[in-house]
Amino acid sequence: MNKSAVLPAVDQVMAELGERARRAARLLAQAPAERKNAALMAGAAALRRSGGKIAEANAADVAAGTAKGLTAALLDRLTLDDKRIEAMAKGLEEIAGLPDPVGQEMARWQRPNGLDIARVRVPIGVIGIIYESRPNVTADAGALCLKSGNAAILRGGSESFRSSKAILACLQEGLAEAGLPEDCIQMVPTSDRAAVGAMLKMSGVIDVIVPRGGRSLIERVIAESRIPLFQHLEGICHTYVDGAADLVMARKVLLNAKMRRTGVCGATETLLVDAKVAKTHLPVLVKDLLDAGCAVRGDAATQAVDSRVSPASEEDWSTEYLDAIISAKVVDGVEGAIDHIERFGSHHTESIITDDPSAAAAFFAGVDSAIVLHNASTQFADGGEFGMGAEIGISTGKLHARGPVGVEQLTSFKYVVRGSGQVRP
Amino acid sequence: MNKSAVLPAVDQVMAELGERARRAARLLAQAPAERKNAALMAGAAALRRSGGKIAEANAADVAAGTAKGLTAALLDRLTLDDKRIEAMAKGLEEIAGLPDPVGQEMARWQRPNGLDIARVRVPIGVIGIIYESRPNVTADAGALCLKSGNAAILRGGSESFRSSKAILACLQEGLAEAGLPEDCIQMVPTSDRAAVGAMLKMSGVIDVIVPRGGRSLIERVIAESRIPLFQHLEGICHTYVDGAADLVMARKVLLNAKMRRTGVCGATETLLVDAKVAKTHLPVLVKDLLDAGCAVRGDAATQAVDSRVSPASEEDWSTEYLDAIISAKVVDGVEGAIDHIERFGSHHTESIITDDPSAAAAFFAGVDSAIVLHNASTQFADGGEFGMGAEIGISTGKLHARGPVGVEQLTSFKYVVRGSGQVRP
Repeated sequence: MNKSAVLPAVDQVMAELGERARRAARLLAQAPAERKNAALMAGAAALRRSGGKIAEANAADVAAGTAKGLTAALLDRLTLDDKRIEAMAKGLEEIAGLPDPVGQEMARWQRPNGLDIARVRVPIGVIGIIYESRPNVTADAGALCLKSGNAAILRGGSESFRSSKAILACLQEGLAEAGLPEDCIQMVPTSDRAAVGAMLKMSGVIDVIVPRGGRSLIERVIAESRIPLFQHLEGICHTYVDGAADLVMARKVLLNAKMRRTGVCGATETLLVDAKVAKTHLPVLVKDLLDAGCAVRGDAATQAVDSRVSPASEEDWSTEYLDAIISAKVVDGVEGAIDHIERFGSHHTESIITDDPSAAAAFFAGVDSAIVLHNASTQFADGGEFGMGAEIGISTGKLHARGPVGVEQLTSFKYVVRGSGQVRP
Repeated sequence: MNKSAVLPAVDQVMAELGERARRAARLLAQAPAERKNAALMAGAAALRRSGGKIAEANAADVAAGTAKGLTAALLDRLTLDDKRIEAMAKGLEEIAGLPDPVGQEMARWQRPNGLDIARVRVPIGVIGIIYESRPNVTADAGALCLKSGNAAILRGGSESFRSSKAILACLQEGLAEAGLPEDCIQMVPTSDRAAVGAMLKMSGVIDVIVPRGGRSLIERVIAESRIPLFQHLEGICHTYVDGAADLVMARKVLLNAKMRRTGVCGATETLLVDAKVAKTHLPVLVKDLLDAGCAVRGDAATQAVDSRVSPASEEDWSTEYLDAIISAKVVDGVEGAIDHIERFGSHHTESIITDDPSAAAAFFAGVDSAIVLHNASTQFADGGEFGMGAEIGISTGKLHARGPVGVEQLTSFKYVVRGSGQVRP
C-alpha cells in the first residue's frame, strides 16, 4: 500500500494544524485571565494525576534512546522522574500566578484635538516552538504561550515524542476543563523531520518561531525560516576584570560566573583581564579556577602564569563550552575588552568587574549585548533573576525581544484611539 | 572590454558598503544627541544651499522618466520643486527637534539582592530602506535613522537615482560638518536591480529592512528577504458604521476618512454598514460619497440604494484603491464587521462609528489591527497625528514595531545591571 495514501502529506498535516491554531488564537486572544489561569492550574493537577502515564511514556522514550545510543547527557535531559514531573506542575502554577500581560495599557496620552490614544498589549497570535529532547519544554513553552494569549505549535525532538505527547495531553485536559479550545496548545503530530521544514515555511500562519536547542538546530532554523525568530543563540559570555577591579570581588564573582552551573547559557566562557593587573590578578584568578576543577585555555600571557593552562586556539574564543572549561586572555583595558567581545561574543551577557565608574560606563556603552553587568555574576542572566518570571529563552537578537523572553515579550500591542467625531483637517 | 572588469560585482560592492555601515553604526551608537542634531541641521542648510544642484539632477531624472513613459502619477512623485526641497529641509529640522531616544531608560527596578536593573534604549544597528522613486524618502529615512543612532543603507528607485544622490550629498555634508562619518548614511551606488537581491541577503550586516512602496516591491522583499522586515503592507482600512451610530457624525467622519486625501495609507477603502441602519444611514452615506466624486462599488444591498453604485467584485474587498473609489457592504453588526475585516483587511487601521460603548469595546477587542479607532477618522493613522513625530511608515507586522514607525520604534534596548559583587546562589 502506498504510504502517502495512509499518512496525509506532512504539508497537509501542518496546514490543518496551522488553521486550527489560528482559530484557537482568535478565541484565546479574548480569553479573560481567570480562564487562562484556570487552564494552567488544571493542567498542573493533570500532570500530577498522570504521573504514572507520563513515566511510562518516558520509559519508552528512554529505552528507545538507549537502544539508539544517545549520550548520557542527552539521556539525562530526556529522563523524567517524579521530581521533574512535580517541577513541571509547579512551573505551570507559577506561570498562572504571573500578572496577565494581555490588555495592559503600556501608555496612554491625549492629543490637543481630544483624541485619546492608548497602547495596549495584545497577544502575538501563533507561536511555533522548535526544541530538542527536553520533554519539560513542552509544559513550560505551552504554558508561557497560553498565559500570553498565544496559540502554540510545539515541535520537540523525536526522541522525546512519547513523553511530550503525554505531557501535552495533560495541558489539553487543563484547557478543556477551563472551557478553552484544546487547539490552543498543539504538538506537531509526527516525528518526521520534514515537519520542521514545513513549519518554517508557514508564514502568515505562524507569527514567530522560537528555536531552543544546540547550534545545529538554531543554524538550520535560521537558514530555512521564512518566519521571524526569537533567536536564542549561544551564550558566549565574558567576564572582564578591569585594571581597577577589587581582587576579592573579582575572585568571588568570576568563580560564580563560571562554575556555579557550567551548563547554563549565562555561564562565563571567557575571562578577559586588563594588562594593568595581569601580574597581580591573573595568577590568582587562574589558580582559583584550576583548583575548582575548571580547565583553563589561555593566550601566551595566561599560559605563563600556571603550567596547567593549555593554549587557547582561535576557535576557543568563539566556543560556548557549557562545561568546566574557560578561555582566558589579557587585553588592553576596557577598549581591548570591548573589541574582543564585539569580535567573538554572541551579544548575550557580559560583566565588568571594576571600582572605576568611568570604566563601567565605557563598557556599558561599548558592549552591544542583551545584558551588561557591573560587579555581578553573568549567571544572573535569567528571567527569574530579573523578576520577570518564567522565560522561554534569552534572545540574542535585537528586534522585539532582547534578553529574557517572558510573557510580556510574547505579546505585541495595538493602538486604541477614542474619539468624539474627530476628522483630520 | 569586459564589463565586470570595470564594475566590481554587485555583491562585492554591497559587502563593502555593509562593512562601512557597521563601522559607522558602532561610532554613531555612542554619538551624543547634540552631534546628531548638528548633522541634521547642517544637512538641512546644505539642502537649501544646494537647491540648484538638486533641481538639476531632478530635471535629468524627470526627463529620463518622461522619455521612458512613466505615468503622470509617478512623474509627480518624482518631481522636486522649491517647495518640496524646502519641505525636506524642514523635515530634517523637525527630526533634529525630537527627543533623542537613545540612552532613554525605559524602566528601572531593584531586586531584593540589591541588583539595579535598567532597560535602556540603544540603536538597532544598520537599517536598510528600499523604496520607490520618491526622492524625498532619501532625506526623511536617512534623517530618522541618524536620529535614532542607526546607520542607513538607502536603496531608492532607479528613476530617482540622480535626485537621491544629490540629496544624499547634502546629508553627508551635514554629517561631515558635525564630525560624524559620512558612512552613517549611504546609498547603494548602483541602480542595478541585482543590488536589492544582494541587500536582502545581508543578514548579520543589515539588522532590519524597511520596504516602502507598492505591492509588487513589498511582495518581492517579503519573498526574498533573509533579514527581518518592518513591513508596511497596504492599508486596506475600514470604516464601520454601527447600528448605534449617530448619522451626522458618521457622515462627517466617513467623508473625511475616504476623501480628505485618497492617496494615503490611512484612507478608508471599505465602508461597512450595520444591517440595522442599512435603510436609514446607508443611502445618505453613499449619496455623500457619490456627490463628493467618489466611485462606490457595493454589494447588492448598496447597489439597491443608488443607481450610480457599481457592483463590487470579490477582489474589491481586498483592494487598496488609493483613489476616489470605495467598496461598500452591509454586515450583520459588530461581529459581521470584525469577520469581514479579519478576512479581507491588512491589519492597518479601522474605525467604528457608534454611540454604543459595548459595540466599540467589542470592535477594539475583535479587530486585530495596528490602529483601531472609535468615532474618529482613519486618516489619523500617522505618526505625526499620534504625537510621535516623523515616521518611516506604518508597520502592519506585529513584531517590534506596529503602527507608526518613528524614532523610538527604530531602537532596540539592552539591560544594564549594576551590582556590588553579587553572585548567584
